[in-house]
Amino acid sequence: MPEFFNVLPPGEALALLLDLLPERPAAGVCVADTSQALGRVVAAEILATESLPPFPRSTMDGYSVRAADTYGASDGLPAWFTLVGEVPMGQGPDFELGICEAAVAYTGGMLAGNADAVVMVEHTQAIDAQTIEVMRPVAPGENVAQPGEDVSAGEPVLPAGHVIRPQDIGALLALGIQRVQVAERPRVGILSMGDEVVHPSATPGTGQVRDVNTYTVAGQVVSAGGTAVPLGLVGDDYEEQLVAARQGLAQSDMLVLSAGSSVSARDRTVDIVAELGEPGPLVHGLALRPGKPAIVGLCDGKPVIGLPGNPVSAMVVSSLLVRPTVYRLMGCAHPPPANEQTAVLTQDIPSAAGREDYVPVRLSESDDGTTIARPVWGKSGFIFTLVKADGLVRVPADAGGVYAGERVQVREL
Amino acid sequence: MPEFFNVLPPGEALALLLDLLPERPAAGVCVADTSQALGRVVAAEILATESLPPFPRSTMDGYSVRAADTYGASDGLPAWFTLVGEVPMGQGPDFELGICEAAVAYTGGMLAGNADAVVMVEHTQAIDAQTIEVMRPVAPGENVAQPGEDVSAGEPVLPAGHVIRPQDIGALLALGIQRVQVAERPRVGILSMGDEVVHPSATPGTGQVRDVNTYTVAGQVVSAGGTAVPLGLVGDDYEEQLVAARQGLAQSDMLVLSAGSSVSARDRTVDIVAELGEPGPLVHGLALRPGKPAIVGLCDGKPVIGLPGNPVSAMVVSSLLVRPTVYRLMGCAHPPPANEQTAVLTQDIPSAAGREDYVPVRLSESDDGTTIARPVWGKSGFIFTLVKADGLVRVPADAGGVYAGERVQVREL
Repeated sequence: MPEFFNVLPPGEALALLLDLLPERPAAGVCVADTSQALGRVVAAEILATESLPPFPRSTMDGYSVRAADTYGASDGLPAWFTLVGEVPMGQGPDFELGICEAAVAYTGGMLAGNADAVVMVEHTQAIDAQTIEVMRPVAPGENVAQPGEDVSAGEPVLPAGHVIRPQDIGALLALGIQRVQVAERPRVGILSMGDEVVHPSATPGTGQVRDVNTYTVAGQVVSAGGTAVPLGLVGDDYEEQLVAARQGLAQSDMLVLSAGSSVSARDRTVDIVAELGEPGPLVHGLALRPGKPAIVGLCDGKPVIGLPGNPVSAMVVSSLLVRPTVYRLMGCAHPPPANEQTAVLTQDIPSAAGREDYVPVRLSESDDGTTIARPVWGKSGFIFTLVKADGLVRVPADAGGVYAGERVQVREL
Repeated sequence: MPEFFNVLPPGEALALLLDLLPERPAAGVCVADTSQALGRVVAAEILATESLPPFPRSTMDGYSVRAADTYGASDGLPAWFTLVGEVPMGQGPDFELGICEAAVAYTGGMLAGNADAVVMVEHTQAIDAQTIEVMRPVAPGENVAQPGEDVSAGEPVLPAGHVIRPQDIGALLALGIQRVQVAERPRVGILSMGDEVVHPSATPGTGQVRDVNTYTVAGQVVSAGGTAVPLGLVGDDYEEQLVAARQGLAQSDMLVLSAGSSVSARDRTVDIVAELGEPGPLVHGLALRPGKPAIVGLCDGKPVIGLPGNPVSAMVVSSLLVRPTVYRLMGCAHPPPANEQTAVLTQDIPSAAGREDYVPVRLSESDDGTTIARPVWGKSGFIFTLVKADGLVRVPADAGGVYAGERVQVREL
């Protein structure tokens, strides 16, 4: 049984959870068309099925030659070559070269039968239709890409856990690999709790507000590659919450609980996580602002994250914990880092040592073209603070703040 | 008729094109469910339909009071208050406070009828079930979020051209805005040309290679929010290329031509762009490596980009030109910047002044936790160079290179 922690740094809390998760994709594996697999996670290592390029390819426009025939060629004493043909694009040569014979070669095309190098057209001069002067010697293999030089048959191409990018799609298709085994998208159930929360389609009554957290977290889940499963709303009744959480967890690979915003509501969420499965809560509280009252749990093999009800705190915690966990559930041990931009801070951001702070900032360009970051201050928990912001500046736990003029990393939520 | 340019810096070539495009979305406007609108581009400015919070909300757990009753309270001389009730979450108060009366208030909940501030529970002490001591004075409005303090009815929320993020979805739904007008996804036709290129499903014959550029560019188009329309392959016959390009442009909002890789094949692409519509080519050649032989054109109002056939050059040009153009076609004047990470370079990257260089690098973590970037050298045009790389380091045109130990920005393709 893992140890239970009160108030850990978010990175340690995350590591604690991820270390307890199996490496295999939580929702299983499926086959995707390579051309449609952008952002999917490779489920099993992919090896090259053949070598590329498949033939010696010219890397320049010019003439294929036997390199030995060019030795000693110079501007003052060029070597004379007889042009005996061309190798058209997409075709093989149907002839070989004799002594001091050359053939027209195109970038990406093949060389003449026994040619071993290509002279760039810039280093030649046409004398007549059959004759060229070569002004520079070439070494064997010069301006030629050898078979297997890009990739060799059997070589590992993409490891399991790799998130597929446009270049990976191109490379797999270059090998003729038209289908790939990828992790199924994990289903992330999201349950919003609290007597005051109503559905966005409702007109809130006195003291009520519309649900925000289900949808911000869903957006973060989807952008990480998961499937968001909104589980609806439940009030502050403990038994109803427990039933809804149990049902939600049963149909999901991971559960996110957005707690009510009062202290007592948050405390109840820990009890729910404890009842959902073993070992239950791993961490209660993060050395983080905003986002301290978060819960990290594991219930019968499925991650359960408890978010503070406050929409800003919920997004910060979700960005730090839910997003990497979704990647991990696809078998991705090293999730792509959150998108960041570098900017120069316009004013001091004070902070208490001992906890990480995330402060919303708005980016703009100064007169000299520098990207500058201006803090967006606002009462805790206003969602429009994040709408007005372009990202968050992190103040490390061991710093008393970050200061005007410092270069900071601004991370996307 | 715009002036024609030979060899511009990529940023200037892009600006030239974008300045000639209308601001309205090229493919029209449609209505999306807000909860499904992640990554879509707002088509018309969205105003707040109501004020948030809708009522004075407590930002703390504690007691709502009339602030005047707390004046002078201190640890040594606390003020005594009679507890007259609580305001439950999601409900309004059904009572008002008399002199030195208080009501239990929850974070996010309402205050008692005529209360104007909230005392944090930490600054109180319970004497008995009906009585509390208040140890600190509060000012009117303290620990209370006022109606409209997050957003006021009528206030602009998201401008036209904004790319919708998770927090925007949450904020719109908080206002009850369940549908949004967004730009239709622009259709980007992609035509790969060259006698040597075959479909990924084919077994290449002698001298042939499988098509890569259609799929890498498609991936970049899709990740920017566009719809990729693969137009298939056409050989090096000029008339066939022209017919295929015309048909492709007719069914698309933008056309990308991947030229054959020989110099003559590239030159023919300019002629095609000139025949497709007015004004035709705007720029032929970029001060860029790799990617010099690129073409930027506008044909009867639709952008046409000619890419070099070399897969690495094609991806670099597409990242610099196609991606921002796709955003612009959705009405987004300031596309989100390419994802970047900061890293320390491990070795010198020399470069010729006068052109921008983009060098593939692989990232790793050094012993002290620094992210380091190591160049991935390889013969020009190998797609697996980009598979092995985590991003590109840009060497500015006015620099002779970047040097080992420098902090560099590594951008995603």
